Amino acid sequence: MWGGRFSSSPSALMEAINASIDFDRRLAAEDIQGSIAHSAMLAKQGIISESDRDAIHQGLQRVQAEIESGSFTFSKALEDIHMNVESRLREIVGDPAARLHTARSRNDQVAVDVRLWVRSAHDRAEAQLTDLIRALLDKAEAHAATVMPGFTHLQGAQPVTFGHHLMAYVEMFGRDRGRFRDSRRRLNESPLGAGALAGTSFPIDRHMTAKALGFDGPTRNSLDSVSDRDSLLEFMSAAAICAVHLSRLAEEIVIWMSAPFGFVRLPDRWTTGSSMMPQKRNPDAAELVRGKTGRIFGSLMTLLTVMKGLPLAYAKDTQEDKEPLFDAADTLELVLAATTGMIRDLEPVPERMAALAGAGYSTATDLADWLVRSLNIPFRDAHHITGRIVAEAEKLGSLLQDLPLAVMQSVEPRIHEGVYNVLSVENSVRSRTSFGGTAPARVAEQIAWWRERV
Amino acid sequence: MWGGRFSSSPSALMEAINASIDFDRRLAAEDIQGSIAHSAMLAKQGIISESDRDAIHQGLQRVQAEIESGSFTFSKALEDIHMNVESRLREIVGDPAARLHTARSRNDQVAVDVRLWVRSAHDRAEAQLTDLIRALLDKAEAHAATVMPGFTHLQGAQPVTFGHHLMAYVEMFGRDRGRFRDSRRRLNESPLGAGALAGTSFPIDRHMTAKALGFDGPTRNSLDSVSDRDSLLEFMSAAAICAVHLSRLAEEIVIWMSAPFGFVRLPDRWTTGSSMMPQKRNPDAAELVRGKTGRIFGSLMTLLTVMKGLPLAYAKDTQEDKEPLFDAADTLELVLAATTGMIRDLEPVPERMAALAGAGYSTATDLADWLVRSLNIPFRDAHHITGRIVAEAEKLGSLLQDLPLAVMQSVEPRIHEGVYNVLSVENSVRSRTSFGGTAPARVAEQIAWWRERV
Amino acid sequence: MWGGRFSSSPSALMEAINASIDFDRRLAAEDIQGSIAHSAMLAKQGIISESDRDAIHQGLQRVQAEIESGSFTFSKALEDIHMNVESRLREIVGDPAARLHTARSRNDQVAVDVRLWVRSAHDRAEAQLTDLIRALLDKAEAHAATVMPGFTHLQGAQPVTFGHHLMAYVEMFGRDRGRFRDSRRRLNESPLGAGALAGTSFPIDRHMTAKALGFDGPTRNSLDSVSDRDSLLEFMSAAAICAVHLSRLAEEIVIWMSAPFGFVRLPDRWTTGSSMMPQKRNPDAAELVRGKTGRIFGSLMTLLTVMKGLPLAYAKDTQEDKEPLFDAADTLELVLAATTGMIRDLEPVPERMAALAGAGYSTATDLADWLVRSLNIPFRDAHHITGRIVAEAEKLGSLLQDLPLAVMQSVEPRIHEGVYNVLSVENSVRSRTSFGGTAPARVAEQIAWWRERV
Amino acid sequence: MWGGRFSSSPSALMEAINASIDFDRRLAAEDIQGSIAHSAMLAKQGIISESDRDAIHQGLQRVQAEIESGSFTFSKALEDIHMNVESRLREIVGDPAARLHTARSRNDQVAVDVRLWVRSAHDRAEAQLTDLIRALLDKAEAHAATVMPGFTHLQGAQPVTFGHHLMAYVEMFGRDRGRFRDSRRRLNESPLGAGALAGTSFPIDRHMTAKALGFDGPTRNSLDSVSDRDSLLEFMSAAAICAVHLSRLAEEIVIWMSAPFGFVRLPDRWTTGSSMMPQKRNPDAAELVRGKTGRIFGSLMTLLTVMKGLPLAYAKDTQEDKEPLFDAADTLELVLAATTGMIRDLEPVPERMAALAGAGYSTATDLADWLVRSLNIPFRDAHHITGRIVAEAEKLGSLLQDLPLAVMQSVEPRIHEGVYNVLSVENSVRSRTSFGGTAPARVAEQIAWWRERV
Repeated sequence: MWGGRFSSSPSALMEAINASIDFDRRLAAEDIQGSIAHSAMLAKQGIISESDRDAIHQGLQRVQAEIESGSFTFSKALEDIHMNVESRLREIVGDPAARLHTARSRNDQVAVDVRLWVRSAHDRAEAQLTDLIRALLDKAEAHAATVMPGFTHLQGAQPVTFGHHLMAYVEMFGRDRGRFRDSRRRLNESPLGAGALAGTSFPIDRHMTAKALGFDGPTRNSLDSVSDRDSLLEFMSAAAICAVHLSRLAEEIVIWMSAPFGFVRLPDRWTTGSSMMPQKRNPDAAELVRGKTGRIFGSLMTLLTVMKGLPLAYAKDTQEDKEPLFDAADTLELVLAATTGMIRDLEPVPERMAALAGAGYSTATDLADWLVRSLNIPFRDAHHITGRIVAEAEKLGSLLQDLPLAVMQSVEPRIHEGVYNVLSVENSVRSRTSFGGTAPARVAEQIAWWRERV
Repeated sequence: MWGGRFSSSPSALMEAINASIDFDRRLAAEDIQGSIAHSAMLAKQGIISESDRDAIHQGLQRVQAEIESGSFTFSKALEDIHMNVESRLREIVGDPAARLHTARSRNDQVAVDVRLWVRSAHDRAEAQLTDLIRALLDKAEAHAATVMPGFTHLQGAQPVTFGHHLMAYVEMFGRDRGRFRDSRRRLNESPLGAGALAGTSFPIDRHMTAKALGFDGPTRNSLDSVSDRDSLLEFMSAAAICAVHLSRLAEEIVIWMSAPFGFVRLPDRWTTGSSMMPQKRNPDAAELVRGKTGRIFGSLMTLLTVMKGLPLAYAKDTQEDKEPLFDAADTLELVLAATTGMIRDLEPVPERMAALAGAGYSTATDLADWLVRSLNIPFRDAHHITGRIVAEAEKLGSLLQDLPLAVMQSVEPRIHEGVYNVLSVENSVRSRTSFGGTAPARVAEQIAWWRERV
Repeated sequence: MWGGRFSSSPSALMEAINASIDFDRRLAAEDIQGSIAHSAMLAKQGIISESDRDAIHQGLQRVQAEIESGSFTFSKALEDIHMNVESRLREIVGDPAARLHTARSRNDQVAVDVRLWVRSAHDRAEAQLTDLIRALLDKAEAHAATVMPGFTHLQGAQPVTFGHHLMAYVEMFGRDRGRFRDSRRRLNESPLGAGALAGTSFPIDRHMTAKALGFDGPTRNSLDSVSDRDSLLEFMSAAAICAVHLSRLAEEIVIWMSAPFGFVRLPDRWTTGSSMMPQKRNPDAAELVRGKTGRIFGSLMTLLTVMKGLPLAYAKDTQEDKEPLFDAADTLELVLAATTGMIRDLEPVPERMAALAGAGYSTATDLADWLVRSLNIPFRDAHHITGRIVAEAEKLGSLLQDLPLAVMQSVEPRIHEGVYNVLSVENSVRSRTSFGGTAPARVAEQIAWWRERV
Repeated sequence: MWGGRFSSSPSALMEAINASIDFDRRLAAEDIQGSIAHSAMLAKQGIISESDRDAIHQGLQRVQAEIESGSFTFSKALEDIHMNVESRLREIVGDPAARLHTARSRNDQVAVDVRLWVRSAHDRAEAQLTDLIRALLDKAEAHAATVMPGFTHLQGAQPVTFGHHLMAYVEMFGRDRGRFRDSRRRLNESPLGAGALAGTSFPIDRHMTAKALGFDGPTRNSLDSVSDRDSLLEFMSAAAICAVHLSRLAEEIVIWMSAPFGFVRLPDRWTTGSSMMPQKRNPDAAELVRGKTGRIFGSLMTLLTVMKGLPLAYAKDTQEDKEPLFDAADTLELVLAATTGMIRDLEPVPERMAALAGAGYSTATDLADWLVRSLNIPFRDAHHITGRIVAEAEKLGSLLQDLPLAVMQSVEPRIHEGVYNVLSVENSVRSRTSFGGTAPARVAEQIAWWRERV
């Protein structure tokens, strides 16, 4: 009919574009949970009989068991999880099933299903972030004093410790955890009972169903309840920021594992080989964590686009919320787990780190600071003097700590032997005792602070 | 080991994040096609024997048959489609299978598989766009003279015809077709033979495999060949722009079907009802076409993000190219088919369109133009005079065409009876004879021009 | 040198790509504020003298005055706001200026500047949201009982009140406010004192500067402090979700103002005319609010992309954080103000709303619910019966409330006169008394609840 | 009035959100060019007099001169560039100015202005890409035989040449050039004469104005002409893909310049120092090229979002097209110029590249291929044997080329002295003579092929 290219007939096409059962079957448990709460409330309020309620409950438990065991037959003709469950319920318990949908619409039904699902996605994310933080704390503790080059612009800047570097990620993942917590708190209201859009004339008790489903209370506006997808957008936003952090750590692992760096090793289980080059050991897991950032950004952009400019109340466009949500949540779960595993198994190579920590005049700032402190030279001038000393050292191919005093004095005559105290990498690191600084004692304090919070 | 929350062991995790067989199995036909071309070339060049080639070809045909019949067992442990096919081939034909991967890497193998797939996605898009254009031409032809209100800012502006309005979409989809054609032409080079990244020392003939696979020739740089994903990005860009067009048409269908407009009807097969409200007939298909725009934008953003800042040559991040590609291509196929179906079945309601075409002083521009033409008043002044006449008409609650001459003359005394010729909706539409204008004769010309091009 | 097409010399090019003074001059006040806090602390800790501190403070106040009065000359050669301010300070106060940058790097300096700026952007957003909520509450209160058609899929669904509809947006903007609050609380830590990346060996007091700048305390990790841009990403995420809400309201205003709907009027100040069509009055402000959603999404996507995969600590890429931040914040400020203004000035047309509220069998759900309640028919069956009655009414061209009893009884004989109580629009609205429902009494309760919170 | 927080009065707010003169003044030259063509055509068709035309032309030339000299006063109250120019024209030439807008609307006027601007942005991009390709060809020619490690997964894979590596980017930028060319060809149709949306009743000649403005002809549908923004979306899509390529090269420069790699040096003009660390030399320009990718992606996402779901014809949302266009085009121009400059000035360090090219058993594939060729071992088995030999070499800490024959024979007894011919880096590179391979002769061929095309 339309040229034979798309093999489906119009109604098959409508089914293909409209049916959501292929993906919303993941909401089966939440849907049944919601129906149990709803029917218990209907009975309590005298809207259905207690015997109908009992039949419904027993029937729903059987449906749940069938789904869990894999014996349930999902039907595309029944469109979605709601109709699939209800239709099977009617087969099992007959007439009482026809009373379940009293004072309810699929609009509020799907809203509560999704909200239960996204709430537990928040809980999973928070738990996984806590695990990842623990893994980082363990590794940071073991390497609180392991010196490595600190980079800015991927150029050697000042020496830091590996523990201090890992603790930067603890801060990031700690903020991520806060975002998921705030979002979870905000979403924890029940849309069940909003009806199609206007509420209902049945004497329902929305506080009762809210409580039964673990919500803090019911939502306050029925139109908003069926058209709102904020909790998904906020979850995806938090996931996108978290993915940024994971991608940065993954990029570092890839760079650290490259031969010219050689800062870390990963056991074989986190790497793969090549079908052509027999010698290869590639950091595939880290690259995939980095790459999967894209799909989390993409999911966020998908749902933002879907929601833009939609008039109230429910519009079918919002059915496009579930697949990006599931994909973002699944991806986040996977990359958090993989990163936690890699961190646990990561083996730093302290000798490579130490070898590079002293290169590139990385203690030049220490020299400038010493000029300020010991000779009372204004910092800007000290910075300039140090630049000239570094140029001399470069000419001689010498490290700063090996540079003869006379050479330094040729630039600034007041420099004396005391300067050598600040020019070694170890002393440099030890001296950074400002709050949040890289001195091992400071790092240990931060580890302790975090230990109390996980 | 990492807190028991993620149920997989490290190696299960690695498999979960690394294995691609769950989605790249869609490349099975392309993978076998590539292997047949590759082994034919190896034999021709004397790199493998003719009997090995024959064994490989027969074995691959059997693998293909097994996959098509559903009897093939895909293994996650074998990671991807390439190893699944090769492993089964070895079971079937033994030793010759071990020679198939000579002078090849999975890097160029997957590059050629994906390029074959995306090439045929281009072909499908072009064919579907041609169908959609045909459907629009048919509908436009039937309604080349059906008057409707033309809107800007969703406010009545000037009368147009429904055929003219539909032809605007023909222009959009015509450009989309051009984009897919240009992209297809650009991508039609074979990466096969690029090896892992550097080419190979075997005396292969890349022109021969390119020709066998329908390419214009081989790619010119082996590093680029294995790291490039441009053809996917360009496909998704073209799909995103096409989705914009489809979303605009879908939005119009939704608005046109709303009761206050009532411009069009869609048969029941394109609408759905409500679980709560028995009277409803909702334009779900149009809303889904509009909503699915989001996932095409999201897929584009996903792959742009994945590719940003990747050093050469192959990186595992690029494995994240396939799922957004498949999803964008599948979604585009679905929304093009659904839109074509809806356009074929769309029933305009000319009386509603006509009733609104004359509202809102939609021929005011005709009046202003008449003042310019007949009274030689500069346009800016004519615009001002017309504004005052409209204000008078508004006060009297009169349409322009029913406004007494005296009222118009009270604003501009030189206005005479001739003015009424331009104030009716029909005359307004008929007068817009500039090239590309809404006059039915002009619309018919454009339909004819397009008929020759589809 | 590179073909003459780009007119700049290499160093001009470097200046063009590198200098940030054209946009980071917006941070002047924050930069001076930070320097005052920093130098006060340096003096308190004995790192600089009190007289140096006093000279610096007086000098900075003069710089600030020059900038505010417009007499300050910004120099591109000095790259950024930090060097522009410090350089002018040195002209004014001489040597003490050279001591200001002791124990500080531009990395922590810009981090604290941006954080102060984004913090006040949060405060502005929260205040504006509160204003917008107030405007909505006022309008909702005036129209708590004004009946309008409630739509799903832009098809008439059930009658609601205009006040109830507006209160849905109060919920959305209320959540937005919560997001900005949570984000502000999370960001309120001072990065000042983190140095370039590793902290400093000077005995600085980061708690003192944090307190002086209104932060809850200092950040805990120096590497994180200079590389983190989470507070911007979280601000933009919250802005993007808020923009979704604003775009929905703007879309509704555009649709409501279209002639076929005619639900609302906006005074001329919110509309514009046409250069060609003298009769036009276009809802430009609403369209621009809707369109500007795009640039807020774009800003978020920009910064997510910038941050993806950046190794620690500071990288110059992060200089690309400021322009999207400023643009997102300015845009949000503008669209919030414009929306608040439009809501205050919006004039509903109750007679148009009422006329359409009863169309399309919008009380069919009431009929179904009556069958359940009065005749004890299971809802699914009642839904089916109602569908048949609607079909009869459609055939007769009758509203449900005007349908003869005999017609209804021909479908379900037990229906009696009592049914007419639920078929009017007014009764339908009044009956939706479930929590969050559209009954005027319920709407009034929600308005009161919100009044206490703004 | 709305709480005093936003300082503007309602009308100031409307001006702030509505006026576009702050950014669309960049279209001044195009706007005047379009008006000259339009008025010449009006005179030719007898719609205005020749003397009016002459007055208009002289007046517009004076306006143009005033704008170029900076003496023109732009007025926000006049909203946009069109009204600013026309208003000044009326001051200069009086009445004839009032006839200029005959048979034209701002809708088609802005459409033609933007199309002229984006067309020249295409031309600039193409010219700059050609320059960049030339710079790469020069550098590649000088280093066609300079050996470096080829990486996959940032792990040493096989040796390649630096020239070969650079030529990969020539391919990418060559495709980018093709995309801009195709897009320019597609957009080269004139929307002028489409009127507000419906065409016009004046006897205009759209072919004449199209020709005068360098277009291939007029657009075919007036509704499409005023609502279409495809040419901008296609420009931004091409720019986004080009930005991906630039970001990859920039990332490589950053990594290559890091101390552990040390593959390249950039002169000081492309680097900057640190305000705190006197020794630093940072690759800021490369980082900014990489970071600015974000804003090009963001601009694309902005306009895609703006256009999604807009009903025909013109909507004010589309005014949001210009700023992302200008920003994307300016950014692209800047990063192309900076990259071209960096490539010209890049100094490879061949000894560092060579030192690492042989590390990591990078000729293992050569060994496997030798086993296939010389001993007729199937590739899969040869791959396995080589893996075991690499493991032996690793145990002994030996390079493959230094590994005693006996050790290799302990794994595969048939290996003989001939194997050493393929184990050196130089021989490996030289042997990759497949089309597109890294052998210097092959690289030289590709350089020659490209020389003919720039």
